[in-house]
Amino acid sequence: MTQSLIAEILEPLESMRLIDPHTHINPLRAASSTLADILGYHYYTELAHSAGLPKSKIEEPGISAKEKVERLVPWLATIENTAQYSWLLEMCQVFFDFKGDRITEANWESLYDHSLQKMQSADWEQTVLDRSGLDQVFLTNDFDDPLQGFDTRKFVPCLRTDDLVFHLTQPSVRERLQRATGVSPGSSGSFKQAIGRLFDHFKARGVRACAISLPPDFSPSSVTASAADAVIAKVFCGSDLTSDETCVLSRFVFWSLAELCAEHRLPFDLMIGVNRRVYEHGVFQGQDLFDSRVSLIQYKALFNAFPSVVFPVSVLSETSNQELVSYSWIFPNVVTCGHWWYSNIPVYIERDTRGRLQAVPQTKQIGYYSDMYKLEFALPKFAMYRRILAKVLAEDFVIGRHWCVEKAVSLGKTVLRGNIEAVFGKSD
Amino acid sequence: MTQSLIAEILEPLESMRLIDPHTHINPLRAASSTLADILGYHYYTELAHSAGLPKSKIEEPGISAKEKVERLVPWLATIENTAQYSWLLEMCQVFFDFKGDRITEANWESLYDHSLQKMQSADWEQTVLDRSGLDQVFLTNDFDDPLQGFDTRKFVPCLRTDDLVFHLTQPSVRERLQRATGVSPGSSGSFKQAIGRLFDHFKARGVRACAISLPPDFSPSSVTASAADAVIAKVFCGSDLTSDETCVLSRFVFWSLAELCAEHRLPFDLMIGVNRRVYEHGVFQGQDLFDSRVSLIQYKALFNAFPSVVFPVSVLSETSNQELVSYSWIFPNVVTCGHWWYSNIPVYIERDTRGRLQAVPQTKQIGYYSDMYKLEFALPKFAMYRRILAKVLAEDFVIGRHWCVEKAVSLGKTVLRGNIEAVFGKSD
Amino acid sequence: MTQSLIAEILEPLESMRLIDPHTHINPLRAASSTLADILGYHYYTELAHSAGLPKSKIEEPGISAKEKVERLVPWLATIENTAQYSWLLEMCQVFFDFKGDRITEANWESLYDHSLQKMQSADWEQTVLDRSGLDQVFLTNDFDDPLQGFDTRKFVPCLRTDDLVFHLTQPSVRERLQRATGVSPGSSGSFKQAIGRLFDHFKARGVRACAISLPPDFSPSSVTASAADAVIAKVFCGSDLTSDETCVLSRFVFWSLAELCAEHRLPFDLMIGVNRRVYEHGVFQGQDLFDSRVSLIQYKALFNAFPSVVFPVSVLSETSNQELVSYSWIFPNVVTCGHWWYSNIPVYIERDTRGRLQAVPQTKQIGYYSDMYKLEFALPKFAMYRRILAKVLAEDFVIGRHWCVEKAVSLGKTVLRGNIEAVFGKSD
Repeated sequence: MTQSLIAEILEPLESMRLIDPHTHINPLRAASSTLADILGYHYYTELAHSAGLPKSKIEEPGISAKEKVERLVPWLATIENTAQYSWLLEMCQVFFDFKGDRITEANWESLYDHSLQKMQSADWEQTVLDRSGLDQVFLTNDFDDPLQGFDTRKFVPCLRTDDLVFHLTQPSVRERLQRATGVSPGSSGSFKQAIGRLFDHFKARGVRACAISLPPDFSPSSVTASAADAVIAKVFCGSDLTSDETCVLSRFVFWSLAELCAEHRLPFDLMIGVNRRVYEHGVFQGQDLFDSRVSLIQYKALFNAFPSVVFPVSVLSETSNQELVSYSWIFPNVVTCGHWWYSNIPVYIERDTRGRLQAVPQTKQIGYYSDMYKLEFALPKFAMYRRILAKVLAEDFVIGRHWCVEKAVSLGKTVLRGNIEAVFGKSD
Repeated sequence: MTQSLIAEILEPLESMRLIDPHTHINPLRAASSTLADILGYHYYTELAHSAGLPKSKIEEPGISAKEKVERLVPWLATIENTAQYSWLLEMCQVFFDFKGDRITEANWESLYDHSLQKMQSADWEQTVLDRSGLDQVFLTNDFDDPLQGFDTRKFVPCLRTDDLVFHLTQPSVRERLQRATGVSPGSSGSFKQAIGRLFDHFKARGVRACAISLPPDFSPSSVTASAADAVIAKVFCGSDLTSDETCVLSRFVFWSLAELCAEHRLPFDLMIGVNRRVYEHGVFQGQDLFDSRVSLIQYKALFNAFPSVVFPVSVLSETSNQELVSYSWIFPNVVTCGHWWYSNIPVYIERDTRGRLQAVPQTKQIGYYSDMYKLEFALPKFAMYRRILAKVLAEDFVIGRHWCVEKAVSLGKTVLRGNIEAVFGKSD
Repeated sequence: MTQSLIAEILEPLESMRLIDPHTHINPLRAASSTLADILGYHYYTELAHSAGLPKSKIEEPGISAKEKVERLVPWLATIENTAQYSWLLEMCQVFFDFKGDRITEANWESLYDHSLQKMQSADWEQTVLDRSGLDQVFLTNDFDDPLQGFDTRKFVPCLRTDDLVFHLTQPSVRERLQRATGVSPGSSGSFKQAIGRLFDHFKARGVRACAISLPPDFSPSSVTASAADAVIAKVFCGSDLTSDETCVLSRFVFWSLAELCAEHRLPFDLMIGVNRRVYEHGVFQGQDLFDSRVSLIQYKALFNAFPSVVFPVSVLSETSNQELVSYSWIFPNVVTCGHWWYSNIPVYIERDTRGRLQAVPQTKQIGYYSDMYKLEFALPKFAMYRRILAKVLAEDFVIGRHWCVEKAVSLGKTVLRGNIEAVFGKSD
């Protein structure tokens, strides 16, 4: 009975058109060219490496796409239990007519060849978008991205600011900033002028959000103008900063971004909790982990100081979800956002979804984003989320609270799409 | 099959008479006078504010009860997914004959008027107590409460001590203490004499527990007499304390309270983990949050020093529940207590209940308290808890461990009521 | 339907032969002699004490085994809800023909007498091994254990190193080391030589793992040779160390053990998170608890420095499980291991199992160990685990991902046994 109820709720959710509010898509090459673009996703390379495949085999310079796939395939047997593998299988079944339930050394090559043929069709990108029901895909753009050559109504710019907040001590980042803005900051004022120009550029191209990922020990606060002046002058001279000065610099830049978000009425996506390069010898993008000892209390000053800025917050550790629920329940400007990375696994998604639907205003929940690098991933990831969402709606609302199916479906649509339009703005 | 089993277990639990071992009821005005007393509960004002209703609209001076409700009603649509809203609906359906499944701008006024009529009946308070099956309601009394004008067998005094432990640096708190006790403390000895008088006063009026809420960074320990003498003398002179001295003061007062609990054989309710005034511009009582980085190891010295004092412990963060389970499993004087505030949501109650029933002696679990401010809230809150309790008893004990229904019901009754009588004492 | 599916998956898992990869069995007295060996297990004495039985009654010198049981039995009523009690009941039913569903003051004596008769049979140990399906039982051996007098193919030595890392400041530990190795260390070099001899001794007797339990605040790192020389010289002179020096000593010894594990290709079991002697007046082995504020980021340097050493990691707090899942997903040398102590409770096992099966390569998961002190405990503990494992396989894989039963069973067998052989080596 529950299974058929879940199916009844799932059906209308599956026929919805989607907006994906956070991805790492390159809009100039949004879809995959070969199966290596899919199997080369860090979720597979890092799992295969974790299971025993040397990094040197995966990242050997000069190997062809087909050889890369051939090297990864034997390791798939070790990870076929994972949710990540289930996405792979679903992609191959839906997009590439794969009929098996395992990708093996015996069948991978025909899959490779057949998928290649599909991906080489001229309209592959649009085919994927259509089959996935995607209306819009939000991007993660470097601050100096020219934002040229693509349709910003389909691929929506978002200003990623990690480099500005955490890597301004690197000469290359400062040079990129100077080149992009024409400003050589010597004080906090001219620095703000520089990043103001970035916002102007992004606003002119339809930016919908400013975004950043943050380490567990970061705690934003305002910085006095004189302290800011001192570190800006010092870093743009090329002098080395002490660790205290680096911390002041990060806080100043972050706070300045929040001020610009307020000025430009732009949501500021906070992705809280990642430690970078924990496994230094890991594969590309497979080196980051986290420390669950983090609290949203670290963001108290920020949430209080910027009541007009909406903060869609993602947390990396599932132990942070109840704090996220509670802070969103209390702060008007805090919104729950998606299921990020190590928490993007059914067991955590289900429980986090329950907590949010039971205690946060329904208008303050961004249900899901794919975080994808290639367009094909939206389909299985959103499919996973919708199945869990339908299960929670069936169990907690229709069975648990005697809601009718229509009302439960409506709640599902609100968190799946309605709130994305409300928070980030409708497409033009 | 599971649903009918749950129903079979639920029925006897629902027909039980209840004791509510922690509330904020004012015994002189225990029941609501208008719907504004219900909708004005911070759970609704803070959620409506979080969803977008300005604090200035909610707390505008001089607005009538009816106007307050009128302003809140349009925002209920944004929170109808929440567990908190489900309590509201159940109260309106049970107490005020409300037939709808949504309170809207179209139907609120007739609900308001009809409920007003009900609440104006002379025996409304007793009607609510009877309909809710409440035998006793524990209070949260200020240390200088005269405890007069109500039946202490029905409304049971509990001595709330936050002001003494954390706010003695405020002149008004010291004045209240001096007025209530006739003592002007100049040393640790005379201070203990003063609070001893508070205990005498409360004991004479049938007090059943001492209680306090504690911030995540508090760690009780004993203080030397000389250090205590110094801070007591200084604070009662009206001098400002350093933050170290304030910490010594809090620890000394807290430890002295534990000593008095031992002397008077009184349980000491610890409600661990709240950060006050995190959202400074939030609505009344809607400003507090928490930091999940807290551990019961901070209470090691306390639990060891007072083996004769029973500590019913509530934790605010669900990430603390396994520690609570484990500390109650090991320490004879630690008892699990209810599901507090941000953890009083079905998803967390269910899991926390599972952990406790699976690993803590059944005699050491206080199942639930309502934490209510108005009497009508006990009914939907206890109803929510009992449904979850019945589900856990059905799934984990009858199905999972092949218990008969009677045995499962008996376990349910023990945590719902029996242990409250055992821990806090039977009514006279 | 789900229940019959679970039963279908459970059946082949229950008929498997087992290896128990972590126990505290004394191979010279592996099975129980009386019911007091079972009820004297700290899980029962600490729960009875927690429920109210004084430690002085439990640990009174000179009481007979039968009297000890007689004193504990009346308290079983208070803990019959616990998972721990369910193990007791299952042991009595399976091994001692107990027919009841409660052990009471009325029936305990006949159970005692009947079980005594059983346990006195000459082949009791083998009977228990056979009935439990146990092929091998891993031990926890003191570093100076002679490892004589038992069959190391059945009872597999593991080198426990807590004493070396944390208690070398005790003269008795240093004396034991000198006696066991013939080395009187005066420098880091001679100390390494000494523990190298321990490894040689254990290797000669078929050791399969080095193991240690670690407090939440431990963070391994390498130590310079000069710093190591200084603390080794000082501690072996019998001088008292400062707390900083004690920390250096622990880190140096720990790091040296990891180096020897690398050299001898031995897995290093890390059991992370226990605080010892939190409840100082608790019963024997019932004094330890934990602090959930711990992170695997503390092991970053270790995991990076020893890529060739496999670290089967157990975490004490369930809030650490997602970190364990994620670190095992990224680091090739980190393996999830069992459900330890306060997390060895169905509600936590189920969720932790879900997280691991959904996101960690199936080859990197040690499903379960019993942690038992007496041989009879393996049966009910593994039975509990297998029931949960079958439930997760049924719900998440057969229903959730449309796997066939055979594939789900195969995954179950891999985590239950296959990986133990792969990680620790097959028996000879």
